[in-house]
Amino acid sequence: MSESLPNTSRRAIVLLSGGLDSATTLAIAMNQGFACHALSFDYGQRHDVELQSAKRVGDAMGVSSHQTIQINLRDFGGSALTDDIDVPKNRNESQMVEDDIPVTYVPARNTIFLSYALALAEVKGCGDIFIGVNAVDYSGYPDCRPTFINAFEKMANLATKAGVNGKLLTIHTPLIQLPKTEIIERGTKLGVDYGLTHSCYDPDEQGRACGCCDSCTLRKNAFEQLGLKDPVLSHLDI
Amino acid sequence: MSESLPNTSRRAIVLLSGGLDSATTLAIAMNQGFACHALSFDYGQRHDVELQSAKRVGDAMGVSSHQTIQINLRDFGGSALTDDIDVPKNRNESQMVEDDIPVTYVPARNTIFLSYALALAEVKGCGDIFIGVNAVDYSGYPDCRPTFINAFEKMANLATKAGVNGKLLTIHTPLIQLPKTEIIERGTKLGVDYGLTHSCYDPDEQGRACGCCDSCTLRKNAFEQLGLKDPVLSHLDI
Repeated sequence: MSESLPNTSRRAIVLLSGGLDSATTLAIAMNQGFACHALSFDYGQRHDVELQSAKRVGDAMGVSSHQTIQINLRDFGGSALTDDIDVPKNRNESQMVEDDIPVTYVPARNTIFLSYALALAEVKGCGDIFIGVNAVDYSGYPDCRPTFINAFEKMANLATKAGVNGKLLTIHTPLIQLPKTEIIERGTKLGVDYGLTHSCYDPDEQGRACGCCDSCTLRKNAFEQLGLKDPVLSHLDI
Repeated sequence: MSESLPNTSRRAIVLLSGGLDSATTLAIAMNQGFACHALSFDYGQRHDVELQSAKRVGDAMGVSSHQTIQINLRDFGGSALTDDIDVPKNRNESQMVEDDIPVTYVPARNTIFLSYALALAEVKGCGDIFIGVNAVDYSGYPDCRPTFINAFEKMANLATKAGVNGKLLTIHTPLIQLPKTEIIERGTKLGVDYGLTHSCYDPDEQGRACGCCDSCTLRKNAFEQLGLKDPVLSHLDI
């Protein structure tokens, strides 16, 4: 989970959802000198605006390649992001924290995403995977915790040819302990255009953010604390 | 990785490829009293006879459900089982052992398969996953080793709601240290019809085993050592 020094020869796999966190993570990986292969997932989300954002963000930042993998977590069900469970609205941050595990949690999602990243890393000969998990805002998600990432990294180094031949693989989680405000500050310094990103759990028919789901609330509050307006909420009178 | 005592109330996820090992693993899980949910993968194999075998085996053994997940490891390439790399033929077992890692190794395959099993286990409320990995015949596959399975189990217990709430998940690998002869003996006692299984890396157009790839050779030799003929080779004069 260590952040690497700048390195111009290495290639990295970057998980890119098109959200604020993954866009910032990509900017950090690029800034560290990695040639970045973006990996997105079409996992039966209720809306594909997220994938369009991932493409826009990757293109804007100059990724070396961008691959979208079709998987269907909807076959399994169990989450408000893939099922017809209602997404919570208009909650403040203390109400969100009361959730043991949010209904928007997708079973084993990060495990599956990282497993595909591991396969792609092995084929492309990459020793580095970046993922924008965050244990501050998403403390209720078991697969966003540092203990999970450490355990995945250890398993990954036993799972592959790379691990067998001693060429170790690193899972980078540059945002894991950062509050949202610091994520936005860091990304802004690195030139991230947050207007291209998409984080909303429940966008309107034009794909615009609702402004009141947990995900919108978290980023809206963070932009406000920095004296900024979230550029994806410009269509709303808030 | 411990084998459980018979238990009539528990449900298990069983990874079922349709091969000799996974059919035996399913029989062991059923014999332990688990209600079994079989999980197969359509992962861009060069032939789908494997999936037909999985269906036949699951039906014959009376699984509670059987789900096949479409994933495309071929997008990533890197293996003779999904690419156009030639499958080795007519090698003896000592030649197979010389491979550091066989060309039939699929990058991160067991990691991806187990990750899906983990998602399904969480949704179905199962605490048990069975996988027929074997570290004796497949010592060159990093993701068939006990150290890998132990690391996956540890990671899985940190990845999910189950892990968070203290309801632990067990990865069962009843075959991991068994020679092929003992696997066949055990399965035969449990009534496995090995004529329904398929293990060949390079079947003919009718889906029949070639009899000379590494996988065919391993099971043919084991049946011979037991004074038996491999039922899937009855069409060949060997």
